[in-house]
Amino acid sequence: MSEKKESAPVTSGKAAVSSQALSSLVWKGNRLSMLDQRLLPETIVMLDLFTAEEVWDGIHAMKVRGAPAIGMAAAYGVVLGATAYDGTDAAGWLQHVHTVCGHLATSRPTAVNLFWALDRMKKRAGELIVEASEGQVEDWNAGLEREATAIQAEDEQVCRQIGIHALPLFEDGMGVLTHCNAGGLATAKYGTALAPMYLAQENGIHLKVFADETRPVLQGARLTAFELQQAGIDVTLLCDNMAGMVMSKGWVQAVIVGTDRVAANGDVANKIGTYSLAVLAKAHGIPFYVASPLSTIDLQTATGSDIPIEERSAEEVTESFGKRTAPQGIKVYNPAFDVTPHEYITAIITEKGIVQAPFSENLTHLFAE
Amino acid sequence: MSEKKESAPVTSGKAAVSSQALSSLVWKGNRLSMLDQRLLPETIVMLDLFTAEEVWDGIHAMKVRGAPAIGMAAAYGVVLGATAYDGTDAAGWLQHVHTVCGHLATSRPTAVNLFWALDRMKKRAGELIVEASEGQVEDWNAGLEREATAIQAEDEQVCRQIGIHALPLFEDGMGVLTHCNAGGLATAKYGTALAPMYLAQENGIHLKVFADETRPVLQGARLTAFELQQAGIDVTLLCDNMAGMVMSKGWVQAVIVGTDRVAANGDVANKIGTYSLAVLAKAHGIPFYVASPLSTIDLQTATGSDIPIEERSAEEVTESFGKRTAPQGIKVYNPAFDVTPHEYITAIITEKGIVQAPFSENLTHLFAE
Repeated sequence: MSEKKESAPVTSGKAAVSSQALSSLVWKGNRLSMLDQRLLPETIVMLDLFTAEEVWDGIHAMKVRGAPAIGMAAAYGVVLGATAYDGTDAAGWLQHVHTVCGHLATSRPTAVNLFWALDRMKKRAGELIVEASEGQVEDWNAGLEREATAIQAEDEQVCRQIGIHALPLFEDGMGVLTHCNAGGLATAKYGTALAPMYLAQENGIHLKVFADETRPVLQGARLTAFELQQAGIDVTLLCDNMAGMVMSKGWVQAVIVGTDRVAANGDVANKIGTYSLAVLAKAHGIPFYVASPLSTIDLQTATGSDIPIEERSAEEVTESFGKRTAPQGIKVYNPAFDVTPHEYITAIITEKGIVQAPFSENLTHLFAE
Repeated sequence: MSEKKESAPVTSGKAAVSSQALSSLVWKGNRLSMLDQRLLPETIVMLDLFTAEEVWDGIHAMKVRGAPAIGMAAAYGVVLGATAYDGTDAAGWLQHVHTVCGHLATSRPTAVNLFWALDRMKKRAGELIVEASEGQVEDWNAGLEREATAIQAEDEQVCRQIGIHALPLFEDGMGVLTHCNAGGLATAKYGTALAPMYLAQENGIHLKVFADETRPVLQGARLTAFELQQAGIDVTLLCDNMAGMVMSKGWVQAVIVGTDRVAANGDVANKIGTYSLAVLAKAHGIPFYVASPLSTIDLQTATGSDIPIEERSAEEVTESFGKRTAPQGIKVYNPAFDVTPHEYITAIITEKGIVQAPFSENLTHLFAE
C-alpha cells in the first residue's frame, strides 16, 4: 500500500481547517454563507448568497451537494426568496412563497430532501398565515427563518442519532468502505454514512476507512478523504474500480453509503457506482448498509424504477480534471445516480433505528410509529 | 444517453488521424519512433529514441503501454542497445546483449510480453553467434533487427487471428463492454480485445461498444474511445463505476478485455478494475472474454497469486491530470493490475482458437499442439 509516512494526518496548506468546524452552510441573518464544495480540497471559499436565485444556482451547479444539505440550502433559499416580496397581503405573500418553492424544486431532480424541505417550508408558511393572518410580512418571514434554522438543527441531531444506532455494527479495527460523500459536508454535521465513523472515533473505536474517489465529480477524493483526514480518522483513497480487489483481499468488513432517495420497497438511489459496489459486496459476503434519515425515505415512491435518474453533461466525464481526457465529439453516458435493489441491502440505518428486510413492511411500520 | 448529435464520428482538431494509420511503434532503421500515448487524445507526438536507455524510460513512464507493444518496444530497445557495443568479440557482444536485456527487463514488472520478447532476443543473439561466430558485429546486429521487426509483423498477424476466432461470438447489434486499451495502440495493429470489433466492422457487423474510462490513467477514455471513434465504430464512454448500471439495463451482451499475463490455471492479470467487471458480468449472466496472444500466457506461473502486482504512485490518483483532486498527505492504494480468478472467465480467445474451462488442461493442450 502506497502510504505517505507521516505518523499523523497531514493538513493541506490551503485547507488547514477542521471539517468539524467547517460547515457547508452557515445562516447569517440576511444571507446564506455556502461553502463552494466544488473547490475542495485545495481551496475554501464561502459564498454569500442573498437571493433564492443564487441558492437555486448553488444547488444546480453542485456548489452545495449531499441530500440533507441540499434540503437545508433550499429552506434558506425560501427565506431569502420570501424577503423579496414587496406587498403586505397575506395571500399574496403565501402565493409568492409557493412560487419561490416551485422554482427551487427545479434545481436538482433526484434528491427527495429538496422536495421534503420545500414542502415543509410551504406548510409552515401556511401555518404562519393562519396563526397571524393580521400580522406583518416581517413576522411571517421571521417564522420561515426559524423553520429553516430548525431544519438545520434537527439535521445535526438526526445524523448523530444515525451514528449512535449504527455503532453496534462496527468493531475496533474493522475495514469500512464508503462511496461519494455522505459526510459532515453533506449535512449539518457528522453526515449520514460517515456519522458512524465520527461516533466510533468519539467512542475510541478505530475504523480503517476506504474512500472511493467517486467519478466523475470525485466527491470521495475531494470531500470524504478530506473531512475524515481532517478529523484524524484513518482513511485510504481508492479509485472506484479498485473496490472489488480490496474486498477480495479481505480488507473490508462493511460497506456503508448514503442515499438520495429510498423507495417504499427499500430500493435505494445513490451516487452512480453504488449499485456496482452492492453487487460486489454481496459476491464477497460483506454487509451493505445504507444510512438514511427518515426525510430521505419516500413512501410515495413505490420502487426504485419510479425514481427519476438525473443525467448530467458529457463534459463532467471528459474534462473534469481541468484537462480534456477524451476525444472531441465522443458519446458519453453520464447518469448521476443508480438504483440499488433492496435485495442487495443488509440494513437501512435511520435516526429511529436499524431497518432490515422485509423493507416494505418495516419501513411502513417505522413511519407508523 | 447524452449523445452529441453528429451523424458521423467526429475527428478531433489536433488528432485527425486514423488510428489504423497511427502506429504506436515505427522502426526507422537507426531509431525507434514511439507514439507518446500519455498525450493522447489531444496531442500526437512521435518520439525518436536512439538508445536502450531511452526505450527503458519510454516503457517505464508508460509512453508506450499495452503488453504486446511493450514487448515490441523492448525488442527494438535490444537492437538499439546492441549497436552501442564497441568491441568485435562474439562472447563480449553476447554478454553485452544480455546486459541490455537484463536492464530492459526492469522497466515494468507485470507484463509477461516484456520478458517473452527479451528472452526471444537473447535466444536469437545466441543463435546468430552460433550461425556466424566468425562474423562481424554489424551482421549480428542486423540479425537482431530482423528478429525485432519479425516480432512486430507476427504481432499484427496474431491480433488479426484473435479477431477472426472471436468473430462467431458477436452478433450484429450486440453491446460489448471493454476496459482499458487492448487495441491497435497496444499492439502492432487491431489489438487483442479490440480486434473482434475491427474484424466485425470489416465483416459488416455493427457492435455497440461501451468503453470504461479506466482510472487512474484513463486509457479507455484517451485511447480506446479515441481509436474506435477514429475507425468509425460506435463507442460510448463510461466512468468505471457505471458498468454495473449499464449491465443491469441489459445493454451489454459481452465483456471483452485484454490481459498482461495469463497463469497456467487460467487466472488473468489485467488492468485494475477488470476483476470488479468480471464479478459484475457473472452477477448479470453476461459472458466474460479475455483476448490473449499465446505470448501472454505463462505456463510457468501456476496461478494468479504468483503474478507480481505493480503498485504505482499516489500522485497517479491524486493529481493525474494536472490538477490536485485529493487532499495533501492522503493515503492512497494504487495497484496497476488485479487478478481475475479463472472461474469468472467464460473463454480465453487466442490466435490459435478459443480456450474454455478447464483452463489448466486446455491451455496445456494448446501449447502442446
